[in-house]
Amino acid sequence: MKLEELFLDTLKDIYFAERQILKALPKMTKAAQEPKLKEGFSAHREETEGQVERLGEVFEILGKRAQGKTCEAIKGIIEECEDLLEEEPDAGTVRDAGLIACGQAVEHYEMARYGALIAWATALRKKDVVALLQQNLDQEKKADSLLTSVAGSVNKAAAKAA
Amino acid sequence: MKLEELFLDTLKDIYFAERQILKALPKMTKAAQEPKLKEGFSAHREETEGQVERLGEVFEILGKRAQGKTCEAIKGIIEECEDLLEEEPDAGTVRDAGLIACGQAVEHYEMARYGALIAWATALRKKDVVALLQQNLDQEKKADSLLTSVAGSVNKAAAKAA
Repeated sequence: MKLEELFLDTLKDIYFAERQILKALPKMTKAAQEPKLKEGFSAHREETEGQVERLGEVFEILGKRAQGKTCEAIKGIIEECEDLLEEEPDAGTVRDAGLIACGQAVEHYEMARYGALIAWATALRKKDVVALLQQNLDQEKKADSLLTSVAGSVNKAAAKAA
Repeated sequence: MKLEELFLDTLKDIYFAERQILKALPKMTKAAQEPKLKEGFSAHREETEGQVERLGEVFEILGKRAQGKTCEAIKGIIEECEDLLEEEPDAGTVRDAGLIACGQAVEHYEMARYGALIAWATALRKKDVVALLQQNLDQEKKADSLLTSVAGSVNKAAAKAA
């Protein structure tokens, strides 16, 4: 195995993951009760569309067809999110607290993957690929910080919920 | 659903995850070629034993039986690690690069989970629980940083490997 193959394999993994997230975000947006959280999920859905496009550009630069590879990790994380969506909506703030945690598990998975891809693309001296992936990583970090900031008031309210 | 239940559910998730990691780390230690990586995985195995014990203490404080709950996310991440272990060992440095990325995906999953648990325990005013979980989180962050520092030279060597 060469580093180029490991890179391509992991690129396919995150491409699959981003498209799964694209499908999950509208459900999370709909379920969120706290307006800032709803808005945050909705805005991140639009960002994720741009991220999928950027990944498409990376495949193009490498002369490969854009193609996903089933990623069991992201499927597992999203499954946990969907279990929460089935909770009765009157458990609103607690469900919001859970949705934030799910969102952050997703962001952390992506940060780890983009971190590795960027390190490998740097070692392989592919500057244009690094620049595209860095934009995605920066957006994931911002999305994670936004969730942390919303969590403060949501968790306080959830702790008080009967 | 109450926040206490969400907390307990997520505690069971990370308890399951840590025990899966405990089983995976010896294989990763054995497979790693770079001595610093081997040593890092080995040291993290010992740390993980302590983390499982701390989680046991948290269950005890809550008056609950220590119990895991299948976490598909960590199973997926570890599955990806194990695929790498099946690669031929003469792809050594590239495999090391992949093992580092797997290790970092594990650390990031844990950071997200501990981050949420600490935020919830804080909202629920459980200081002793926060203190225990914070120790685990700090160790995961340190393990992630160590992997980043080892990655530099490993990735450079991997990029040159034929």
